[in-house]
Amino acid sequence: MPEVHMKDIPLSELAKRMRNIDIAMLATHTEGGHIATRPMSNNRDVDYDGDSYYFTIEHARTVSDIRANPKVSLAFQSGGMFHAAVEGEAELFTDEPTLRKHWQESLNEWFPDGPATEGVVMVKVNAKRIKYWDGLDSGEVKL
Amino acid sequence: MPEVHMKDIPLSELAKRMRNIDIAMLATHTEGGHIATRPMSNNRDVDYDGDSYYFTIEHARTVSDIRANPKVSLAFQSGGMFHAAVEGEAELFTDEPTLRKHWQESLNEWFPDGPATEGVVMVKVNAKRIKYWDGLDSGEVKL
Repeated sequence: MPEVHMKDIPLSELAKRMRNIDIAMLATHTEGGHIATRPMSNNRDVDYDGDSYYFTIEHARTVSDIRANPKVSLAFQSGGMFHAAVEGEAELFTDEPTLRKHWQESLNEWFPDGPATEGVVMVKVNAKRIKYWDGLDSGEVKL
Repeated sequence: MPEVHMKDIPLSELAKRMRNIDIAMLATHTEGGHIATRPMSNNRDVDYDGDSYYFTIEHARTVSDIRANPKVSLAFQSGGMFHAAVEGEAELFTDEPTLRKHWQESLNEWFPDGPATEGVVMVKVNAKRIKYWDGLDSGEVKL
């Protein structure tokens, strides 16, 4: 049986690897007690402490799910041997100055009036725990 | 704003695409009310109806989470523009004849006595709903 090693990847290096994975899968608790998962672009915006930012619209299920239960999970897959899972608490922001701080040019394609677009919502995922797997290595960071 | 299209991908084609994505991210409800996610190899074993099979060990958190709440989610990412999310109910199997039906040679590396290895558990995820995103197209299949 292959030996699985615990390996310490520093948080800043983990954040960097997550930043380089454009599409994360965000899992939320649904009203019916299920787990719903959908792809979200992190816009290469992952803080050094693992927090990350996503943009969606007010009427999205993502938003109502988070309002009802902010406990979420994010899955990051490199396409290679690296995988990370973030357990976190999501926070919703709609005020333009806050959105502007995390706004990326590429978002204008989806939200024509930029951070002032009606109904745009920023989801910040506050990372509480990050587990990672890197080939046969794995580890965990609690925050 | 780019137009997002609904697109019907037949279930058999969806299952084929999922089969070709070796590592899925399996999300479970934890005791503490969080969502825990970990990579699992599907061993290219995805039924035509979207059900899929994973192997783990009795003392894994995956198993205790599923015993407490069988509602799970699976995320599949192609590494390209295709993403799928399965909402499902997980079932646990430990009897050798059932495990043998889904056993793959490559699992022997992890479970030296094959399906007779002490503590090996098969997780079957019964797909109830599959959502998918393929570039700007997306769709959903209810089962």
